[in-house]
Amino acid sequence: MTKGRGDQGDAPAPENPTTPPLDPKVDYELAKDELPGWFGYVEWEDYPEKKKAAHEILISHEFPPPPEFQLEPIPGTNPVLEGVRWKEWHRASQIPIIDPNSWFLRLEGLVKEPKKLTLADLQDESKFPRMERLVTIQCSGTRRIEQISLYAGEGDEMINAPWAEGAIGTARYVGISLKKVIKYCGGLVDGAKHLELVGADTYFKMSEVMNYAISVPYSKVQANEVMLVWEMNGEPLPKIHGAPVRAVVLGYIGARSVKWLYRITAIPEPTKAPVQSREYLYFNQQVGKHNQRWTDGIQIQEMPVSSAIMAPWNKQVVIHEGKISVKGWAYSGGGRWPERVEVSADGGFSWYMVPVENLSPKHKFAWRTWHTELPCDVEGWIELVVRCWDNSLSKSLWFMMACLYIIDTQPTEVRNAWNWGLHVTSSAHRVRIYSVNKSKERTRARLEEFEKRGTSFVPITRPTEFPFMTWEEYDEFFAKAGPRDIEV
Amino acid sequence: MTKGRGDQGDAPAPENPTTPPLDPKVDYELAKDELPGWFGYVEWEDYPEKKKAAHEILISHEFPPPPEFQLEPIPGTNPVLEGVRWKEWHRASQIPIIDPNSWFLRLEGLVKEPKKLTLADLQDESKFPRMERLVTIQCSGTRRIEQISLYAGEGDEMINAPWAEGAIGTARYVGISLKKVIKYCGGLVDGAKHLELVGADTYFKMSEVMNYAISVPYSKVQANEVMLVWEMNGEPLPKIHGAPVRAVVLGYIGARSVKWLYRITAIPEPTKAPVQSREYLYFNQQVGKHNQRWTDGIQIQEMPVSSAIMAPWNKQVVIHEGKISVKGWAYSGGGRWPERVEVSADGGFSWYMVPVENLSPKHKFAWRTWHTELPCDVEGWIELVVRCWDNSLSKSLWFMMACLYIIDTQPTEVRNAWNWGLHVTSSAHRVRIYSVNKSKERTRARLEEFEKRGTSFVPITRPTEFPFMTWEEYDEFFAKAGPRDIEV
Repeated sequence: MTKGRGDQGDAPAPENPTTPPLDPKVDYELAKDELPGWFGYVEWEDYPEKKKAAHEILISHEFPPPPEFQLEPIPGTNPVLEGVRWKEWHRASQIPIIDPNSWFLRLEGLVKEPKKLTLADLQDESKFPRMERLVTIQCSGTRRIEQISLYAGEGDEMINAPWAEGAIGTARYVGISLKKVIKYCGGLVDGAKHLELVGADTYFKMSEVMNYAISVPYSKVQANEVMLVWEMNGEPLPKIHGAPVRAVVLGYIGARSVKWLYRITAIPEPTKAPVQSREYLYFNQQVGKHNQRWTDGIQIQEMPVSSAIMAPWNKQVVIHEGKISVKGWAYSGGGRWPERVEVSADGGFSWYMVPVENLSPKHKFAWRTWHTELPCDVEGWIELVVRCWDNSLSKSLWFMMACLYIIDTQPTEVRNAWNWGLHVTSSAHRVRIYSVNKSKERTRARLEEFEKRGTSFVPITRPTEFPFMTWEEYDEFFAKAGPRDIEV
Repeated sequence: MTKGRGDQGDAPAPENPTTPPLDPKVDYELAKDELPGWFGYVEWEDYPEKKKAAHEILISHEFPPPPEFQLEPIPGTNPVLEGVRWKEWHRASQIPIIDPNSWFLRLEGLVKEPKKLTLADLQDESKFPRMERLVTIQCSGTRRIEQISLYAGEGDEMINAPWAEGAIGTARYVGISLKKVIKYCGGLVDGAKHLELVGADTYFKMSEVMNYAISVPYSKVQANEVMLVWEMNGEPLPKIHGAPVRAVVLGYIGARSVKWLYRITAIPEPTKAPVQSREYLYFNQQVGKHNQRWTDGIQIQEMPVSSAIMAPWNKQVVIHEGKISVKGWAYSGGGRWPERVEVSADGGFSWYMVPVENLSPKHKFAWRTWHTELPCDVEGWIELVVRCWDNSLSKSLWFMMACLYIIDTQPTEVRNAWNWGLHVTSSAHRVRIYSVNKSKERTRARLEEFEKRGTSFVPITRPTEFPFMTWEEYDEFFAKAGPRDIEV
């Protein structure tokens, strides 16, 4: 039988029959599962020679460049990109699927008593008290599409995915505090100041292969703000969220809440893993491909205060009677919380406060959703804008208040916060809508005419096929107002 | 033989063999050429019953809506649209191709002695002195794409074509002044105040068929600002420009310079032809599909002062040594001329004057092109902006100057002048470029590294595949500056 496209020779049979056949040229031996019950997990850090071999393979290939999606017109789809490279990457590296009974957590490095703990150990309430929190996890790329729409930045589809205002989520997590686990290991050796959290998933950057890793300062752990969780919204943590155990770092960006957590290493300095040292950096506006250095970026840990309008949508025609229903979310990182949400129907000139009773309850590490009826007399294209004030205002001395206003709400324009990595779109969220105020007589009459004629008013760009006024009305107007062209 | 797609039955054979076959269901008899030597000309105004029959046909058909191009992502092509409906329309109505020897001009209505003049009559210098002018003809839709990119407006592909900064042109025209022709007809009857200029091309709007028509005030004719021309840049007027004779109305929008001119009618009031009475109107920002009346629009005759950057292009990467070469055009309608052009490299905060010697010569009815070397230290995404001051400033009293500055240059932002018809994009033209200043050491070093490695620097969105600094440099930086996370 001739070897065809579906014949893999000696390559291992794919686990999932719907996955396309594996490439027979690839050395899958290098990327085979390390442990029974740990599907899709490869240990790279403990085997420098394997890491080197993978690097040799990666540099020996000519990979196609990522798809261009910023210098081209941005598709009106959601998501904007299909994530082809994401999918390819996941197919090559696999998403870890770990049997909870086989799972264990390694605690090592500068901990006094290195340990290997099972899930049963963590769930033993005699060792570790249970901890439950409502937590918002926000990607530092939330609302990145607004930056991209203004100016292109670094364009890797995988890293800099063009998220809109939905790359944020809130859930109730159950687990334990990492502080108690460190204490159970006898605490840290002198000089240890950071904890490196490592996931079982494979990550790669600049032709280097590694396990996903970040680090958090030990002080964050000591504040009981780093959780190890196995339950989300009353269910066991789903696979895609990092089952069986993930970190949830309260008030930090999502990239720090390592999924498929399997190793915690106490270290003296922040990890040099790329996600911590070279990515998720917030650059000055003038830093880019032509002059970048990693040391020029601010490490993104806590997100600044932010907010978004969830409805109405951009380009929506909103027919109303002088008030527009608006709803959205508001969030601040680092344990700060939204105190006040303000909305504008005039592009940010006048601001209305969302009534406090229209905000969801306060939580230290969670967003608040809100809704309001925003007065709007104006017709035609308007810009709804939202901004949020967080509680860090109240920490300050009263006489500094005027100054602190600048710090604690959001910049007005996208350009104010645009940066090469397209991170932290913290500017006031703007939504352009077409306002049709039915409380105005002429507007009401026109809408009735559309209805009477059975003609759709939308899309508004479609030319109206019936006259806007009679010639009698037209002549009467100019008889009264004087002609369009005058001689003297 | 079975009748197939290519078999037209009794329909007339197409004139041009490359034209697709005509539709056998269409009554071509109605639209047949009126005069020998006048191909593509149909007289609608003199035959109300024909006009009515065409209307009946148009309302009996369900036409597909125009293509949506504003609410979707705007393609990055030039032109933005293929003009499918333009082409269909031209195929149905034909562009007039008139034998110069068969052509004549009718002068009628409230002229004292109605006449019919041939081209030889017009060219008879004993009757009419020759007139030659360098003239800029600008479409009121020039730079409309900037309005569309901000907000959608009325969306007929044909009417509101998404022009960029190129819908303007300058040529040397030869012909005569219409004033002399009117004088040759004995002048106007009392009460005549406007001249309706009618073209041989067919126009339609709201299911009505008509010859293209507009009107100009008689005062404009008396000022020798309406030409009848047959020569353009030293050549006979090309077919597409309205051969054998078109009007050129100096300082008015292009829509008034009627092509394939064949009839001039003296009338007491501006014509009610749609191009003059119902289109080319400049509405207030709040007027749109929901509340429009024709009387709410300002009739667009003269374009306000305007300008555009022709190079660099939007999204271009510009590598320079601290100065950016910029070039463009500047124009003002109504016989006003550009006095000063100013450019900004910081979005309109600071303005540099284009040296006067870098502007092309002044002409009363023509643009000025310009070029300059614009100082720019800043790197990354910047916005080049251009604005122009015209001479109407100098007409005013000196003590009113501060006030008149507001009137005589361009609005800063597109929104300031956005209107439903997407006409008159008079706001300062903005071009976003990515500035790479090679006079900066780090930038120069990085560019050299790209060159050394044989890696293209563009597109800038493509991730850089080599490190930005060594770990030694990295460690040295933090040893000196202190760590990213601090404890106390």
